[in-house]
Amino acid sequence: MARERLAETVEEGLVTPTGMISHGRGEAFDYLMGERTLDSARKAEKAATAYLLNAENPVICVNGNAAALDPERIIKLAGKIGAKIEVNIFHRTEERMELLISHMEKAGAKNILGRYPDARIPGISSDRALCTKEGIFGSDVILVPIEDGDRAQALAAMGKTVIAIDLNPLSRTSAAASVSIADEMSRALENMIGFSGMKRKEIGDSISGFDNVSNLRGTVEEICRNLRSQFEGKI
Amino acid sequence: MARERLAETVEEGLVTPTGMISHGRGEAFDYLMGERTLDSARKAEKAATAYLLNAENPVICVNGNAAALDPERIIKLAGKIGAKIEVNIFHRTEERMELLISHMEKAGAKNILGRYPDARIPGISSDRALCTKEGIFGSDVILVPIEDGDRAQALAAMGKTVIAIDLNPLSRTSAAASVSIADEMSRALENMIGFSGMKRKEIGDSISGFDNVSNLRGTVEEICRNLRSQFEGKI
Repeated sequence: MARERLAETVEEGLVTPTGMISHGRGEAFDYLMGERTLDSARKAEKAATAYLLNAENPVICVNGNAAALDPERIIKLAGKIGAKIEVNIFHRTEERMELLISHMEKAGAKNILGRYPDARIPGISSDRALCTKEGIFGSDVILVPIEDGDRAQALAAMGKTVIAIDLNPLSRTSAAASVSIADEMSRALENMIGFSGMKRKEIGDSISGFDNVSNLRGTVEEICRNLRSQFEGKI
Repeated sequence: MARERLAETVEEGLVTPTGMISHGRGEAFDYLMGERTLDSARKAEKAATAYLLNAENPVICVNGNAAALDPERIIKLAGKIGAKIEVNIFHRTEERMELLISHMEKAGAKNILGRYPDARIPGISSDRALCTKEGIFGSDVILVPIEDGDRAQALAAMGKTVIAIDLNPLSRTSAAASVSIADEMSRALENMIGFSGMKRKEIGDSISGFDNVSNLRGTVEEICRNLRSQFEGKI
């Protein structure tokens, strides 16, 4: 279903053909996870929600694939954690920006940032760097679902707490993030919405008790176990 | 590069948007393999070449992704092993068939089958079943690079020796095939071209010494080892 929905959005111009390839890469990892949230991902989702609730200026950064796949949950999570939403895309044209922003607005979002960039992410060439002071540039904690490695690294280099949702636990994005959620985006957002009622003490504990590297190592081990058991179940 | 090439072919109509997703899934597995031919894949490629050289009526079945990615090596391998080439696609329209066949012809192929189907693959609904008696229908050994699971199973149910090139060792296609090559298509074809000079005795030994299930199990283990070592190398 997600696949057909995405295929339609290519026609509409929301998603690029290379965005489809990136979706397919994610699908493969999701498949290796048994298409469910791994224990390690759930831990990361809880820590991520805690970081966002604890932030001064939390921002959710939305690209073409994220907007096409699940604008509703992005908007819902933003509401729960008090985050701004900014559209920021790899293949930037004014037309595609407008398309994506109005797509988010049709889904019920208000005040989507990104139309009028007034800052640049340092270390990124081309129009991919364009962002707003109010949003991405000024954020202290930023959630990047389905981000490219260059930009995730550049945001981390700015000193931000980068929270990535990326099905590939080995990607440059996952390696650059402070909290790397290796889970399918809608499942991750849904779980984070569930965690968003956390109290102050639980927020502190979730942040202090989280170790991203050992958590990602747990993801790798879970994938290997799944790969073996799926294989033996098939033959 | 392969990615940009494919993106262009979507514009041309050779590849469908869902074909891009399927390419992405393959990319993820290729990445887990370290973008190189695993030992187990090389064994499968040698056995596959032996089966094709030993066949009465070997056929290479070509779909949109295969034609877009590497028509040259498909044609070269077909020449070396004396195989026919037939175009057979999931989303069949006469226009797309003509586009793909002429794409193969422009790359130097002669006598591409598929324009005038006169048979159906049993057990497959819709126009995906259409094929020719001379080619797919009458083949005893069939090489299917990047095939969907339904058709691979249906071809195997016809009693054919199905050789799959599919980066996912857990796919239904890999499970249905007699020889499952978990390798990137161009690498697999290049290796098979290299094996095509095999002598009679080596052909027999390669076929009798090959066990597809234990070979695929080897692929799964190699992927797990790679996943772990890539992860530890990154953090």
